[in-house]
Amino acid sequence: MNLSAIEILQRNFPQEADAALIISPVNRRYYTKMPSSDGALLVTRTDAVLFVDFRYIERARRVSQGCGVVLRERFYDQLRELLGARGVKSLAVETERMTVADFSRFQEELQGMRLLSSPVLDETIRRQRAVKTAGELDAIRAAQAITDRSFSELLNFLRPGVTERQAANELIRIMRDFGSEGEAFDTIAVSGANSSMPHGVPTDKPLAAGDFFTLDFGAKKDGYCSDMTRTVAIGHADDEMRRVYDTVLRAQQAGLAAVRAGIPCREVDAAARRVIEEAADCRGCFGHSLGHSLGLEIHESPNFSPLSKDTAEAGNVLSVEPGVYLEGRFGVRIEDIVCVTESGCEDLTHSPKELIVL
Amino acid sequence: MNLSAIEILQRNFPQEADAALIISPVNRRYYTKMPSSDGALLVTRTDAVLFVDFRYIERARRVSQGCGVVLRERFYDQLRELLGARGVKSLAVETERMTVADFSRFQEELQGMRLLSSPVLDETIRRQRAVKTAGELDAIRAAQAITDRSFSELLNFLRPGVTERQAANELIRIMRDFGSEGEAFDTIAVSGANSSMPHGVPTDKPLAAGDFFTLDFGAKKDGYCSDMTRTVAIGHADDEMRRVYDTVLRAQQAGLAAVRAGIPCREVDAAARRVIEEAADCRGCFGHSLGHSLGLEIHESPNFSPLSKDTAEAGNVLSVEPGVYLEGRFGVRIEDIVCVTESGCEDLTHSPKELIVL
Repeated sequence: MNLSAIEILQRNFPQEADAALIISPVNRRYYTKMPSSDGALLVTRTDAVLFVDFRYIERARRVSQGCGVVLRERFYDQLRELLGARGVKSLAVETERMTVADFSRFQEELQGMRLLSSPVLDETIRRQRAVKTAGELDAIRAAQAITDRSFSELLNFLRPGVTERQAANELIRIMRDFGSEGEAFDTIAVSGANSSMPHGVPTDKPLAAGDFFTLDFGAKKDGYCSDMTRTVAIGHADDEMRRVYDTVLRAQQAGLAAVRAGIPCREVDAAARRVIEEAADCRGCFGHSLGHSLGLEIHESPNFSPLSKDTAEAGNVLSVEPGVYLEGRFGVRIEDIVCVTESGCEDLTHSPKELIVL
Repeated sequence: MNLSAIEILQRNFPQEADAALIISPVNRRYYTKMPSSDGALLVTRTDAVLFVDFRYIERARRVSQGCGVVLRERFYDQLRELLGARGVKSLAVETERMTVADFSRFQEELQGMRLLSSPVLDETIRRQRAVKTAGELDAIRAAQAITDRSFSELLNFLRPGVTERQAANELIRIMRDFGSEGEAFDTIAVSGANSSMPHGVPTDKPLAAGDFFTLDFGAKKDGYCSDMTRTVAIGHADDEMRRVYDTVLRAQQAGLAAVRAGIPCREVDAAARRVIEEAADCRGCFGHSLGHSLGLEIHESPNFSPLSKDTAEAGNVLSVEPGVYLEGRFGVRIEDIVCVTESGCEDLTHSPKELIVL
């Protein structure tokens, strides 16, 4: 039986709470499938009600799943009435997302209600969102398919003289033309010495023969993010560049091979990091974590990080993105996204990984 | 004498507070000129200190204005020490932006400190940010210049058969090629019957002869937004379309003519709205406010709204964007952004407004 996201929340309801009030756009969308910039979702142990204003009411009635839909008019009156009718005495809120001012307003308007200021609801939601449903996986796959196809299309555009910024702008246009709803994050497009900065922004530097060019980008579909990085060589690559590229690729393969449900996340990071630390010309040059989860947001939990205390679970979707950055010279990063399975992982990224020389 | 943003805050310091802790990215950037995704700015009545992590420290030391810069290491220890040395007993925070969880963490870590949970700091910042400085106006002008130039360039691309989505994607690419840092907001590009929805999203509908095509879009420069709307006709426009277009244009001109320092914002809205309500075929079809402020964010305060209690001040930058939406048939909106002056306003938008038929 497929439970809805709201039903799963109800089965894992914070013990201290009679009901949960969810007001962040991303969590409202997660639980109801209805995107809106404003609104509130009340979930009790037995039912759920989504409040939206007149701009969203028609669409919300059509697309919301697992909840009733109410036109938001005199919101606090409506909420008080609803809470009263259900005998709710304690209300959990998203303390990691609700502002101090909103919390104060709810306290004032809901006299006598116990508003929980501990992060119990945040933690419950975090754990649920970390395990993707079949529908979420479909959306991430669709976003990644656009991303893969866009990379392949962009290769026709890349040549010496094209600037980093022009390449990034063309890539963004292609992703949109292929159906992306927007960028999952600001596109990184860095060449030559710029590629030694893991998060450099595109400049007016033209691509030149002998440069590495690193592209880190992602499309969005149905609200879900994708994320990939490829590093290509312009014109030619010398022996050192090929050696570093090979090390990063082997590190990524070691990371991918380590992924499976039940493994501590820090061990996946370690499996990839070991390969880089064992290469004399790369040692100490991988200064970030191996990967992060993604979904409706580009950075979710858990992470493949040396400090992680989490264990990978089937249904987690994370990036595997080792990099080597030789300061002032060049950098290489290769990134796929994977879905954790009981026996390993499914690689959601299908672009080639052998070194491309353009 | 030109005071820095931080000095102006110090002159208007909330009475109840010995210091202010500013952690939202947008307000940190506003006060220091330093963009960063993470950090904290402490402002006392006599000095200011910006905490950033290792990713930002080098740039922060170079670009921050009006504050010392400290590398964030053991943040709470550093903060406690700093507050202690300055004898700070009460600390104002951004209650409209700080989360409940962050507030709790600060309360726990800063034992004995009085954290103010009233919105005094939010209100002080809101009033300050509403009046743009010369530097801010330059950035908005630069962003609007990209926006104007991009519109003019896009006109060469528009013809029957091009889809709304293709037109939007091309416009986004052009803005980036002309130096925009990104979209100020999701581009609206709606034609024919779709144009009757004020906030419709671009679809795969091709532009067809006899359509109105409404484009609402903006570039970003140095973090600052621009915003404009133009409605053009594809192929031809019939008499009714021309009549409605003319009404909206006259409404906008009436709004623009009403703007000056000292006028209640609702009267500017009323001046434009009156023109639409007096036109038999447009009456009741202008369902939103006339305009909003913009700056580092696309929606700021005050607004030209029927409900506004604010008075326009010299240095406010707002949009003036009346629209008429004939449900299921077509819509027209024309939008400029203006800077309020003592005697009227400076129109920052330079694209033509007479009806363009492509």
